Amino acid sequence: MSTFGKVFRVTTYGESHCRSVGCIVDGCPPGMPLTEDDIQPQMTRRRPGQSAITTPRNEKDRVMIQSGTEKGITLGTPIGMMVLNEDQRPKDYGDKTMDMYPRPSHADWTYLEKYGVKASSGGGRSSARETIGRVAAGAIAEKYLKMAYGVEITAFTTSVGGVHMFPPTAEYPTPSQNPAFMNLLQTIDRDTVDNFLPVRCPDEEANEKMADYIGQVRDAHDSIGGTVTCVIRNVPSGLGEPCFDKMEAELAHAMLSIPATKGFEIGSGFGGCEVLGSVHNDPFIRAPVTEESVAKTGIPRSKLTTKTNNSGGVQGGITNGAPVYFRVAFKPPATISQAQTTATYEGDAEGVLAAKGRHDPCVVPRAVPIVEAMAALVVMDNLMQQMARHAARLQLPTLKQTVPPAENGVSMDT
Amino acid sequence: MSTFGKVFRVTTYGESHCRSVGCIVDGCPPGMPLTEDDIQPQMTRRRPGQSAITTPRNEKDRVMIQSGTEKGITLGTPIGMMVLNEDQRPKDYGDKTMDMYPRPSHADWTYLEKYGVKASSGGGRSSARETIGRVAAGAIAEKYLKMAYGVEITAFTTSVGGVHMFPPTAEYPTPSQNPAFMNLLQTIDRDTVDNFLPVRCPDEEANEKMADYIGQVRDAHDSIGGTVTCVIRNVPSGLGEPCFDKMEAELAHAMLSIPATKGFEIGSGFGGCEVLGSVHNDPFIRAPVTEESVAKTGIPRSKLTTKTNNSGGVQGGITNGAPVYFRVAFKPPATISQAQTTATYEGDAEGVLAAKGRHDPCVVPRAVPIVEAMAALVVMDNLMQQMARHAARLQLPTLKQTVPPAENGVSMDT
Amino acid sequence: MSTFGKVFRVTTYGESHCRSVGCIVDGCPPGMPLTEDDIQPQMTRRRPGQSAITTPRNEKDRVMIQSGTEKGITLGTPIGMMVLNEDQRPKDYGDKTMDMYPRPSHADWTYLEKYGVKASSGGGRSSARETIGRVAAGAIAEKYLKMAYGVEITAFTTSVGGVHMFPPTAEYPTPSQNPAFMNLLQTIDRDTVDNFLPVRCPDEEANEKMADYIGQVRDAHDSIGGTVTCVIRNVPSGLGEPCFDKMEAELAHAMLSIPATKGFEIGSGFGGCEVLGSVHNDPFIRAPVTEESVAKTGIPRSKLTTKTNNSGGVQGGITNGAPVYFRVAFKPPATISQAQTTATYEGDAEGVLAAKGRHDPCVVPRAVPIVEAMAALVVMDNLMQQMARHAARLQLPTLKQTVPPAENGVSMDT
Amino acid sequence: MSTFGKVFRVTTYGESHCRSVGCIVDGCPPGMPLTEDDIQPQMTRRRPGQSAITTPRNEKDRVMIQSGTEKGITLGTPIGMMVLNEDQRPKDYGDKTMDMYPRPSHADWTYLEKYGVKASSGGGRSSARETIGRVAAGAIAEKYLKMAYGVEITAFTTSVGGVHMFPPTAEYPTPSQNPAFMNLLQTIDRDTVDNFLPVRCPDEEANEKMADYIGQVRDAHDSIGGTVTCVIRNVPSGLGEPCFDKMEAELAHAMLSIPATKGFEIGSGFGGCEVLGSVHNDPFIRAPVTEESVAKTGIPRSKLTTKTNNSGGVQGGITNGAPVYFRVAFKPPATISQAQTTATYEGDAEGVLAAKGRHDPCVVPRAVPIVEAMAALVVMDNLMQQMARHAARLQLPTLKQTVPPAENGVSMDT
Repeated sequence: MSTFGKVFRVTTYGESHCRSVGCIVDGCPPGMPLTEDDIQPQMTRRRPGQSAITTPRNEKDRVMIQSGTEKGITLGTPIGMMVLNEDQRPKDYGDKTMDMYPRPSHADWTYLEKYGVKASSGGGRSSARETIGRVAAGAIAEKYLKMAYGVEITAFTTSVGGVHMFPPTAEYPTPSQNPAFMNLLQTIDRDTVDNFLPVRCPDEEANEKMADYIGQVRDAHDSIGGTVTCVIRNVPSGLGEPCFDKMEAELAHAMLSIPATKGFEIGSGFGGCEVLGSVHNDPFIRAPVTEESVAKTGIPRSKLTTKTNNSGGVQGGITNGAPVYFRVAFKPPATISQAQTTATYEGDAEGVLAAKGRHDPCVVPRAVPIVEAMAALVVMDNLMQQMARHAARLQLPTLKQTVPPAENGVSMDT
Repeated sequence: MSTFGKVFRVTTYGESHCRSVGCIVDGCPPGMPLTEDDIQPQMTRRRPGQSAITTPRNEKDRVMIQSGTEKGITLGTPIGMMVLNEDQRPKDYGDKTMDMYPRPSHADWTYLEKYGVKASSGGGRSSARETIGRVAAGAIAEKYLKMAYGVEITAFTTSVGGVHMFPPTAEYPTPSQNPAFMNLLQTIDRDTVDNFLPVRCPDEEANEKMADYIGQVRDAHDSIGGTVTCVIRNVPSGLGEPCFDKMEAELAHAMLSIPATKGFEIGSGFGGCEVLGSVHNDPFIRAPVTEESVAKTGIPRSKLTTKTNNSGGVQGGITNGAPVYFRVAFKPPATISQAQTTATYEGDAEGVLAAKGRHDPCVVPRAVPIVEAMAALVVMDNLMQQMARHAARLQLPTLKQTVPPAENGVSMDT
Repeated sequence: MSTFGKVFRVTTYGESHCRSVGCIVDGCPPGMPLTEDDIQPQMTRRRPGQSAITTPRNEKDRVMIQSGTEKGITLGTPIGMMVLNEDQRPKDYGDKTMDMYPRPSHADWTYLEKYGVKASSGGGRSSARETIGRVAAGAIAEKYLKMAYGVEITAFTTSVGGVHMFPPTAEYPTPSQNPAFMNLLQTIDRDTVDNFLPVRCPDEEANEKMADYIGQVRDAHDSIGGTVTCVIRNVPSGLGEPCFDKMEAELAHAMLSIPATKGFEIGSGFGGCEVLGSVHNDPFIRAPVTEESVAKTGIPRSKLTTKTNNSGGVQGGITNGAPVYFRVAFKPPATISQAQTTATYEGDAEGVLAAKGRHDPCVVPRAVPIVEAMAALVVMDNLMQQMARHAARLQLPTLKQTVPPAENGVSMDT
Repeated sequence: MSTFGKVFRVTTYGESHCRSVGCIVDGCPPGMPLTEDDIQPQMTRRRPGQSAITTPRNEKDRVMIQSGTEKGITLGTPIGMMVLNEDQRPKDYGDKTMDMYPRPSHADWTYLEKYGVKASSGGGRSSARETIGRVAAGAIAEKYLKMAYGVEITAFTTSVGGVHMFPPTAEYPTPSQNPAFMNLLQTIDRDTVDNFLPVRCPDEEANEKMADYIGQVRDAHDSIGGTVTCVIRNVPSGLGEPCFDKMEAELAHAMLSIPATKGFEIGSGFGGCEVLGSVHNDPFIRAPVTEESVAKTGIPRSKLTTKTNNSGGVQGGITNGAPVYFRVAFKPPATISQAQTTATYEGDAEGVLAAKGRHDPCVVPRAVPIVEAMAALVVMDNLMQQMARHAARLQLPTLKQTVPPAENGVSMDT
């Protein structure tokens, strides 16, 4: 299904070589200022061609709002958005061996298995261009989240190949135990991250090592993967639906839907499996009062937060008000400028595929805004789901067992 | 939302201390033999009280089919299933400090933030009992998958704390590069896994080490996490929806919806980020002819498979016919038999919470059938989605660009 | 799909002769008092065996809440509900011709075409017992709507066969032009309707004629249809989603999903096609201030209402605050105690089917609470959807183009 | 929600005065020939300006496919479609009283209540231009249904004001009892209907009367409603989901989502309430063998049909293979060229609104292709749902209780 979300919903269309790519955002709150200028910055951050270590395709990627706004204000109706595909040439990735061989670890073969159509662009929807609609939609979600709750979402590169910003150690089997990492999560923002272009690893030394390594890989006509870490600050508590649609489940779904991803972990993640419960448990403390945590209407702010944050801001699938953070694994891009031995489509012979197309040696830096966009979509959709529940609860009388509903965000008992 | 799936859909209800827990399975194919005997085995494997290292609660967990079958045959209508809660006592986990303090890293606090109701059972739906409905539903999906396509789904414990069955090494930064691991995936089955009760790690030495370690942790009134690996063999190719609902995205969603999970990786996973593309790419080869791969009707078998399988059986979000495998991280259980310092509900003081409830020191072994159940639900739902597409395509004439549709699973061109 | 609704969602299970029938209600607001006593009255109103003109089956239909409440308060988690099937005997409707002939205008044949399974209970889910889950779920929705917004939903019988309470005339081609009808909609309530048992037509003369007519039809071993009209008062304005999910579209969906229905009309309906636009248009006037329209929090009350109400309380698919009313057509029950000539299942011969089962000569009176239940589900689901939007909008600053959001239901400009 | 359908899904965007209107069709079967030429004819039939009795706006409405096809073949990926709004002038319908008064029976007021935004185009999504996306999507569904199953969908005008093509009589209280009507349903097609432009009532005399009447109404600066009847022939049996998503429920939903509709009836409809069960019941007979009913693969054709068809081709919510037919009520258009007395937005005074905009005196003729499009969407979506079930069932062994699955549409037992 090409739709994501239940209340704030995004439907995308388009593949690499069709007329345009785009999306429809359904369920956006009405009355929000919104123009293309709110959306373009993340489109541009996602765009290839930003430096020597990304693909040289010179796409312009100008987003055009088709509907859903009038005089720069959202109407509450579906917002259609479109980006023209300037480069509509089919089949320019390689020589004609492309007709004979499905590219290893690319989607040519599985698309054929799924659809039974031999398309010249192979696994068209698996193209990175498909992510344009996501980033456009994510920018709208982000604008609302920022305006309404001061939510800040920032992603950055934490590893490229074996070069890690915060490698696991015996002392810190997971970064969630590492004070340097946890401190960084409190302050990191996009401007800082973009000071470390093209790799977007906000640590001088690691960033440089990663850039060097990507250069070596590119010169060797090879490719390499890495990880992106993302933090969401000021996210309201109470978001995420118990059982199947836990906040971490929806984030995992969102992240593993990004092309080339192989893994997701939240909070302590895989490293957290190696820590004892008595260490891993996050004791509650009173939440500090900040500018973002007061005087807001709507869903009230949590009175408590946690002293440590191995949970990644989520307990029982529901946000607790502490920062939500997670890490996403990206594999090395499948398209490499080396000859590869593989079977033909008919399976009757092996041969050599010489892929010569334009490609990124490492997609991790460009993935940063896509990770942010998908995170914004998940939070926004869950926020609106919780708003329906919270608003419905506000209409009921307070009982012995129920918390006096916070009207306008100020709990009655404070 | 308490529903999982789009075509084969499961809706669950129930918390720890209510009258019963259960589910409704909607969309099950009609005409399949099905009785409670098909479902009970996985219920029993999930059940606590199987050994000294799991919780001593003596639940019986007998599943009762309410509807959707007649004389042992599915009707195609919704299958209601129910398991009585024999133990309906509220609030017996600890002393009355439970009223004052939300348990650290448990869902007491976030449920209160979400719902505004002080329930005696705290975050009721976050209880492991909620997974009963999933396991029951998964057993139905599994039966169909086995009957129709010979699909085999087996999960097993691959680490407990720092004790790993296949630790990453310099040579094999990811198990997907490790021949021993890849061979195991070809043959492992549930009987073998259950030979290694109670830990369910199918390696004599590792299993014993893990059991010892869990024992130590229990004696220290502490808890520990671990990982479960799951393999799905004979899964048809072409499953998984491009873009948002990629196979790996749905598996990640499913797994991170299981209580106490913190991470998911498919194929090479996080370790795959450290491998060069030229090594990571999986060359295509002709698929071997096996009993499962021939003479079946329906969605045809893939003519190709891959020589290596770093992809984890999925490319571009779609299965390629090779085994699908993934790993899930479970944190140490939050409930421990130690005193813990934490804030009160009101946030106005810190105090000591003495949790004395019954609990598992390590949930990983019991999670094995839950992981299998959720995997079955994802595959089944995606299979039926692909069946709709494939059956619709079969009604169209073959064109130059389209593959002659395989009728009854036999491609016309072979 | 056996699920209804998007935010307030009901999933049902069960057919006539299985162990139990029931439902899961997902998305109920937390903190609402709820026990079986809130649900049973509508169950009982739906129950057959209330008088000589309904079926003599003596079902008890006691609803049992399984989950989702604690000490009589909703938790916000899924509410499982169940009613045992006391009468589980299969195949007792007729003689063994039932095995040979699909009953005319019943669902035996189409269920076989759909599912390919010969069930002894024929089209099991098409049984009136399937509506039990709907009525139980509807009772929960109604309780909330009444508590939170004073919403009143009342249905009643408006025709049986050719006997009409408000027959169309040249002067009033549609009841929406008839002052007597429009006045009745302002005051009619369930107690009044139940004063006219068993037919439930709140007009002495028409009620008696209908009862007589049903008696004649029963004595002739025949059956007859009729119409039910339903009014929803105090429904908040702004409910209903433009485009595909207009309020009238969802009501039509809900009503045509009730067994034996053949038509739906809202407001002026089919008769409205015959009225000129200048007469049909509903001019706006200031809304009167009533107890229900003030001092409520949440979604504010409309300042305007309409002088006439041919629209049926809905314009552009969205409620305007005026009463919503509609009419539903029920066909004569297919099961009659007459011999019927029809083809065998194999289609190779015609023969005579002698149906002797217990049946209602007219289902219209029993349909009254089912219509009310489905109406409640539609309003509740749309209310919660609008609450999400409204609450989200409340967090944005007021602009020149936007209405100052009513906080706590009191518009800032009043 | 701006999405319709579960498997074959359409999402639309756009209002009257934005940059473009359009839709995304998700779930289209791959490998089907499709170009804009397949879609444009219905777009043109829907277009205003076809004659003196429709609005003089000269819209071109050229559809442009954005994605999802390559070289004229569907890829199986989402099909984006767009039509430019040539006329983007806001607020040109009337004089400035439009700023002060919400138009009676139009959506200006309810959109403001719902969204809280004062848009210059009033209830923008309630515009007839919103239906462009539906018609485009419907054309794709129709093409598939025609190619794969010979499905024929034809709608036509059956009444305008009090002028009826088949008025109810004492002998035929419902057209389903009228042989002339039932015969027409067997043969009517679009070419015939368009011979009766501009009214599209396929009866010389009635058509002329209707045209005359519309002319009178237009000259009186007034408007009038009417009804559209639609028949679907060759629809496979077994379509429609029991319980909430019955075929008639989905059709009703679809039809009542079209702007200006007030009612829906299937088969005998409201008139059927007045017929005895012994007359209303449709006896089964062997289905005739026709070109469409043999030699097709996929879902098999029903061996039986019904002698009469009061059911409208649907029993228990599931198609039985007989023609499906239904009738839709359209109210008189709200926009009329007469002064109307109504309240201001503020509700503080009454005044006169002088609407001078371009408008149709009767929308019924233009509604014909929209009704066809929505019918196609419902059938297509339900067909694909049934295909998933049927294909899944085909993989199971035949049991005593199950019908041998028809492979390639030929039942094994024939």
